[in-house]
Amino acid sequence: MPPLNEFAMIDRLLQQQRSGQGGTPAATEVGIGDDAAVLSMEGPDYLLVTVDMLMEGVHFTDPPATPGAIGRKSLAVNLSDIAAMGGVPTHAFVAIGLPRQRGAEWGMACMDGIGTLATEFGVAITGGDTNIWDGPLVVSITLHGRTTGHPPVLRSGAKPGDWLMVTGALGGSLQGRHLNFLPRIREAQSLLERADLHAMLDLSDGLATDLPRIAHASNVGFVIDASAIPIHADVDSQLLDDQRLHRALTDGEDFELLFCVDGETGAALLNDPEFAPWLTHIGVATGESGSIFLRTPDGHQTLLPHSGYEHRF
Amino acid sequence: MPPLNEFAMIDRLLQQQRSGQGGTPAATEVGIGDDAAVLSMEGPDYLLVTVDMLMEGVHFTDPPATPGAIGRKSLAVNLSDIAAMGGVPTHAFVAIGLPRQRGAEWGMACMDGIGTLATEFGVAITGGDTNIWDGPLVVSITLHGRTTGHPPVLRSGAKPGDWLMVTGALGGSLQGRHLNFLPRIREAQSLLERADLHAMLDLSDGLATDLPRIAHASNVGFVIDASAIPIHADVDSQLLDDQRLHRALTDGEDFELLFCVDGETGAALLNDPEFAPWLTHIGVATGESGSIFLRTPDGHQTLLPHSGYEHRF
Repeated sequence: MPPLNEFAMIDRLLQQQRSGQGGTPAATEVGIGDDAAVLSMEGPDYLLVTVDMLMEGVHFTDPPATPGAIGRKSLAVNLSDIAAMGGVPTHAFVAIGLPRQRGAEWGMACMDGIGTLATEFGVAITGGDTNIWDGPLVVSITLHGRTTGHPPVLRSGAKPGDWLMVTGALGGSLQGRHLNFLPRIREAQSLLERADLHAMLDLSDGLATDLPRIAHASNVGFVIDASAIPIHADVDSQLLDDQRLHRALTDGEDFELLFCVDGETGAALLNDPEFAPWLTHIGVATGESGSIFLRTPDGHQTLLPHSGYEHRF
Repeated sequence: MPPLNEFAMIDRLLQQQRSGQGGTPAATEVGIGDDAAVLSMEGPDYLLVTVDMLMEGVHFTDPPATPGAIGRKSLAVNLSDIAAMGGVPTHAFVAIGLPRQRGAEWGMACMDGIGTLATEFGVAITGGDTNIWDGPLVVSITLHGRTTGHPPVLRSGAKPGDWLMVTGALGGSLQGRHLNFLPRIREAQSLLERADLHAMLDLSDGLATDLPRIAHASNVGFVIDASAIPIHADVDSQLLDDQRLHRALTDGEDFELLFCVDGETGAALLNDPEFAPWLTHIGVATGESGSIFLRTPDGHQTLLPHSGYEHRF
């Protein structure tokens, strides 16, 4: 058997269902494959559901992370997924395995990290399962959100000619930002009030890994302008320009929003002082499905490097 | 700091919220403290949400458990929670940390165990997060359900004079039944069509630990008839009668339904050949809040032993 990655494992889970009689019930609008599942409700809005499991030694280590920062991050990554669907978060369900050897105070600090961020974003912690064991910390949070009068923003709506835009700056997140980033819930809501967003996701594995997901779902390609990529100040300034760009494209854990709008809307956003300070136009969608090129200032186009993190046996 | 258990940790999580401005939003009918959270929807039915995290070395070991049985159990415990609310399951969100050293085939067998049971109960697997790590297996499943024209059955509705009834037989689950039990979804639906259930839960930690939860939530007491407790054939027949009874009351992981109905309804259920084979009348609710007595055949009453499993630092 060849080595298998996480995607193959999820496929396996779904295979059982496809071969069964049920399939996905009508009440599911979008299942696995976007930032969150979309469930229809009786009213006009949709229920969004996302789940992320954070594991010690995989997603963080302590030190340098503190228990409070780890708890905070375990909710923040889920908030980022709800932001990427254009939703606002409502209820969290927290399953946690606390390491016995770290003791009760450490566990409480972790809980406090979750609770503080939940309060900050108006999220009610509505269910939980707490375990204390001899293994490393594991936190799995399921977060509910809802849309707010707009349909959910999927990955599949980008059109050739769309502008590709990004919030904030990219790269160097592991210097510390991956633990204390602010999920872009409010930014997504502001954008939705102002613009028709064709497609969106949150950058978790790095632009070079995440952009192909929009390309694949939307059946488009992209040309990225290398000189336009906003490189975060956390990326080592001692590196060569090419190395800094590579870091911005592949580091991951940026948790910024990457989205597509038509050109007119994109230009209007950049002319609006409410949006211009934190938005960058980094490329355009093309009809060349699946091809993602990086255009350098000298006019050359190269294939975008792909080196995001992937779980593997 | 004194040793802290799992309940203290969950309290800590909620404390942040209570001290915040938000509190529990109006859309949450029941939060932490019952078998599942109850969220109101626009229609007449309620959304039920439950989450359980199963951890290798705590909830199972392999051997004797197989990966398929472990996967199956991780969904079954959640189905049991939805049954205990009187609901039917709809969508599952599966977060999993697979042990790298066990390899891909083992991981797939675990996934198959989840998928097969999901298909059996008409559950759509709608979201997931798959990780492969160097730690032991961790599976956290969040399960959605809905009520079916009846309000959810909480733990808090028992009244003095109610009959206490239980499905199936108790004790000895660790002989293997804890891995292949059939969640009582259908039984709960049959009961709801026939009877007004005042209070219900599923027996996960053993009757001696779980019954006080109904007593506390409903502000009642109970007198249990020791000779009426249905002792499972899995309890070692070589033990003394007292020891066998103790096992039935404290072993845990029975995943049978424990519920309260008025006496007339209880008697009618026992006279109905559809229900009589799998129901037992084991006691009555009293107005003596919190007192739980075991009445032995000689007429003596003793306090119910309490020795369920509890996670502790």
